[in-house]
Amino acid sequence: MNDLRRRIKEQALDIFRNSVASVDPKAVVRHALSELADEIGKSARICVVGIGKAALPMVEAARETMADRITDCIALTKYGHGNKAARFEVIEAGHPIPDENGAAATERIIDMVKATAPEDLVLVLLSGGGSALTSLPAEGLTLADLAHTNRLLIDSSADIRQINTVRKHLSVFSGGRLAQYARPARLVSLILSDVVGDDVSAIASGPTAPDTTTFADALDVLNTYGLTKRVVPPVLQHLAAGAEGRVPETPKPGDPVFEGVTNIVVASAATALVAAQQRAVDLGFSAFVLSSSFAGDTHELARFHAAIAREVRRYGRPLAPPACLISGGETTVTVTGSGKGGRNTEFALAFARETDGIRGIFGLFCGSDGTDGPTDAAGAFTAFDTVALAREKGLDARDYLKNNDSYTFFHALGDLVVTGPTRINVMDIRLVFITPEVAG
Amino acid sequence: MNDLRRRIKEQALDIFRNSVASVDPKAVVRHALSELADEIGKSARICVVGIGKAALPMVEAARETMADRITDCIALTKYGHGNKAARFEVIEAGHPIPDENGAAATERIIDMVKATAPEDLVLVLLSGGGSALTSLPAEGLTLADLAHTNRLLIDSSADIRQINTVRKHLSVFSGGRLAQYARPARLVSLILSDVVGDDVSAIASGPTAPDTTTFADALDVLNTYGLTKRVVPPVLQHLAAGAEGRVPETPKPGDPVFEGVTNIVVASAATALVAAQQRAVDLGFSAFVLSSSFAGDTHELARFHAAIAREVRRYGRPLAPPACLISGGETTVTVTGSGKGGRNTEFALAFARETDGIRGIFGLFCGSDGTDGPTDAAGAFTAFDTVALAREKGLDARDYLKNNDSYTFFHALGDLVVTGPTRINVMDIRLVFITPEVAG
Repeated sequence: MNDLRRRIKEQALDIFRNSVASVDPKAVVRHALSELADEIGKSARICVVGIGKAALPMVEAARETMADRITDCIALTKYGHGNKAARFEVIEAGHPIPDENGAAATERIIDMVKATAPEDLVLVLLSGGGSALTSLPAEGLTLADLAHTNRLLIDSSADIRQINTVRKHLSVFSGGRLAQYARPARLVSLILSDVVGDDVSAIASGPTAPDTTTFADALDVLNTYGLTKRVVPPVLQHLAAGAEGRVPETPKPGDPVFEGVTNIVVASAATALVAAQQRAVDLGFSAFVLSSSFAGDTHELARFHAAIAREVRRYGRPLAPPACLISGGETTVTVTGSGKGGRNTEFALAFARETDGIRGIFGLFCGSDGTDGPTDAAGAFTAFDTVALAREKGLDARDYLKNNDSYTFFHALGDLVVTGPTRINVMDIRLVFITPEVAG
Repeated sequence: MNDLRRRIKEQALDIFRNSVASVDPKAVVRHALSELADEIGKSARICVVGIGKAALPMVEAARETMADRITDCIALTKYGHGNKAARFEVIEAGHPIPDENGAAATERIIDMVKATAPEDLVLVLLSGGGSALTSLPAEGLTLADLAHTNRLLIDSSADIRQINTVRKHLSVFSGGRLAQYARPARLVSLILSDVVGDDVSAIASGPTAPDTTTFADALDVLNTYGLTKRVVPPVLQHLAAGAEGRVPETPKPGDPVFEGVTNIVVASAATALVAAQQRAVDLGFSAFVLSSSFAGDTHELARFHAAIAREVRRYGRPLAPPACLISGGETTVTVTGSGKGGRNTEFALAFARETDGIRGIFGLFCGSDGTDGPTDAAGAFTAFDTVALAREKGLDARDYLKNNDSYTFFHALGDLVVTGPTRINVMDIRLVFITPEVAG
């Protein structure tokens, strides 16, 4: 039994590592550039713009691939994500709260990109966090105005699409504007997606993608949530001016601006999960990806996964054991206790309870970024004997779950997964294993 | 577009009807008896005992198959589920609250079964509801004592397994006792399962199945939930007497009582879902059963199903369209509004919102018993244009969901599914359809 547990845990960690490696910023940029060799070859000058939490490794990969071809290069990333020793300009700025450093850097990027010629190539390397880093308020607005509006929207029940609609119309970089500035140079954007569905107009607020929303839509959002009288007057004036055509709209789908533009999602939750599936199959499991976009309550989703695992165990469907069920996305935890844990360890504990004693069911649940909530773990490993092993140590799984103390629980069992920050976030990676009927 | 909608709705209803037909009490008993022809052939007398909500059709099927062979026959069912015109004895009794009619009928059944000889066959036809119908209190206890204990347990946080542990040790029919009375005649039990996992010791409190729980376990349960001082003294005395060996235990696994006993689950959620899958495949869909045992919050489960449907639509996995995802089990609804609806129409409305506008996603969500909560519908059909069609009629899906008014919502759209009571309950049947990319 211990042998089986140990083997599955090793295989689970192996699959998780492979999954994360498949979205390594350097590796995916290197690979994408090798496929773009022709495009690069025919360009006069190459101007590289890295934006987001992974800007540093992405730009590094570009330089390692073709340093001699790059004439201009800038990386804009979050505080603490830069590197003094970099051989190119790295600017650190505020995230998630935008600051003047970000705004100034964004102006620099706009100037740099505007200076390109038709035969040049602008290579944009985008990753999560880009939206806050490139907050450059439209004329007449301040960062404080944007922050205030943002706060109102977040506190309303507006959804993320509605919030982005307003955001895109208050700043001058997002919503396809970067593509506009780069024109008539060609532009290739390599994108690490951290959003569900990999919508390129949503990642980093889509600076190189067509925007389907309008100033009028933005006003509608404020109206819907009763915010027209609560935002500062310049915000309302700006949106009204845009709706009346006195401020230019963001470029829309079909706009000639995008003729020379290519947006490529080089890594996403889907990429990571498919890599996990491939590795699981190589290790002899039948495997599939259930969904890369699960959201919702952590406990409920754990129940859901457990119900499918039981179906596999009991009826050999929808997969026959040895099987590996894979899923992604990000759940929420309703905290009522005072313990320590993140959504992945919490998921693991709920799953352990749901599969308690069902021999041959295991799971590994980790954040791809290596950071599960406010803890230093990525997540946890769980087995059908987890609850029993804990009981032997005097720990009641139910109490720990109630107290949101899943980190402490798995720490005591030696089943935390600690990887350190992976510098890439494609949401969570969940692996459920069901082995064939085991003896004992 | 309307053509596609109409076609999928027809196919969904077809699959649902096939699924329900696969667990039709008469059909499954008839089929099982044909496979037991040898067993029946070699029996001297055949004594038929039908217990549960489907007792009438099950016994009818037995009589239609071999009326001439049956010497004794009794059907014990819920009030309103009998038939005055039946050519055999039908007793109606209290359910879910047990009553004297049920207790008296249970005594009759025990006497009838005890009178059999070794060369006889006792054919038990079990279905849901059997537990309440056969509540015959142990010596010294009354129905009121049992009801009172039951209420305390339900109001505690004891789970269903713990509740059944106590129940089985307070009455004299469940927990394998019927098998004991029938000895040394052979006994075949054909079982319609209405419980998750089809555990034959749980269905109708398992009168013909080994019981793994003890009087000591029952006392433990009362202890755990602080009920030892709250149950009436005779209950505690009876359990204590049992734990001390002064009252015989229920027969355990391996007990010779079960040597001549065969328990066969002839219909269950799994049966119904596999039939749905088969029919979906026949109609050209790739299809699989996700799980036959989903439980938990209705809205959350709808989100999870929607997330998988989106994965199919976007990436062609875990199935390629045209695809049909199938699931079972029963969810719970947290009612906060004052509208009309059951868990299936509520699921449908939540699902419609989650898949709003995602072309080619459809769903049919129905209770297998044809009765969705307090309504006359079995459930509802939903399509990616459901929310939009409703809007055209002035209905806001969000408001209706908030008010738990899903029945009214789908009634207005003409998308309720009304089948009338099917007399069989294998929990819910959920069908999600994803068609290939559609034009328009």
